[in-house]
Amino acid sequence: MPWQSLGAVPLAFPAPAWVIGTYDHEGKPNVMTAAWGGICCSKPPCLSMSLRKATYTYSNLVERRAFTVNVPSADFVKETDFFGMASGKNTDKLSATALTPVKSSLVDAPCVEQFPMVIECSLLHSLEIGLHTLFVGEIKDVKVKKDVLSPSGTLDMKKAAPLVFAPVARFYHTVGPALGPAFSLGKEFMK
Amino acid sequence: MPWQSLGAVPLAFPAPAWVIGTYDHEGKPNVMTAAWGGICCSKPPCLSMSLRKATYTYSNLVERRAFTVNVPSADFVKETDFFGMASGKNTDKLSATALTPVKSSLVDAPCVEQFPMVIECSLLHSLEIGLHTLFVGEIKDVKVKKDVLSPSGTLDMKKAAPLVFAPVARFYHTVGPALGPAFSLGKEFMK
Repeated sequence: MPWQSLGAVPLAFPAPAWVIGTYDHEGKPNVMTAAWGGICCSKPPCLSMSLRKATYTYSNLVERRAFTVNVPSADFVKETDFFGMASGKNTDKLSATALTPVKSSLVDAPCVEQFPMVIECSLLHSLEIGLHTLFVGEIKDVKVKKDVLSPSGTLDMKKAAPLVFAPVARFYHTVGPALGPAFSLGKEFMK
Repeated sequence: MPWQSLGAVPLAFPAPAWVIGTYDHEGKPNVMTAAWGGICCSKPPCLSMSLRKATYTYSNLVERRAFTVNVPSADFVKETDFFGMASGKNTDKLSATALTPVKSSLVDAPCVEQFPMVIECSLLHSLEIGLHTLFVGEIKDVKVKKDVLSPSGTLDMKKAAPLVFAPVARFYHTVGPALGPAFSLGKEFMK
């Protein structure tokens, strides 16, 4: 085989850097960065996101059966990194970074007011895998700031500037330029 | 709330553009592009990837209980797009694009020889969600071409140039420049 082995490691590209919003048992908003996740169903629209049992978010999510996925722009890379380092058990991470929680109108979880995009989810399934538990959230709504929309009403990737996480190397990246439209570029191979 | 609603749609960033390799019942290699997926566990290392039952890959995967995730570089965006448009039921997609299958040495699935990165997976769990079924694959090995490794032995993101898929807008992007190291940038908020 023409490749070199890196071993059995959790490594794939691209991984997200999502900020998961939950309320704790006292109603205190908490945020945590998660990179193990992705969309997992079109109908109903769902995403999956995995957590270790040791996290504060894990018990919040199991109790409230709701969470938000706040998609930070590159401007918030330092805050996002901090949200993955500190624990809600002993830190009010939103206060520490001067960001503001807003209650979701659809699910029992907080959104990060300053972020350009938020996905409101209710818990649909959970699956124990090993160190991580996979949670499937049904997407109740996707909300974006007007200033990151293109004139056609879709997201302007340059303005939204979502983060990409590189596992193993442990670096944050942005999304780069568009290469071209899907369901179109491949037509030259059609007979 | 300061956002505008886009509705309950399967939209999050970044999504991957992965090429899933399987063998059919006759041992013919097939490839299919999937964007609904992500890493889902660190120990054992696992990724999840969702398929519709109607796909040729679905039955291959259920039968063989193995698949590969081939991570294309930007050079292969046209082939990747084609792999998401045609069906293995009536097309030999690898022949049509002049790409070559190589049998994995670890799992019962083919790899795409020309791609810079391949993740060999054995099927661990499946979860019916709705239109899509979520498959959890245990990562048996991650293999990369030597020419996309940095001197430190991690992946050089610029050389590997993995694709990012933008759902709804349906565009392919590359991964952009590094913003900085994780578990480090956020330290300024630590007290």
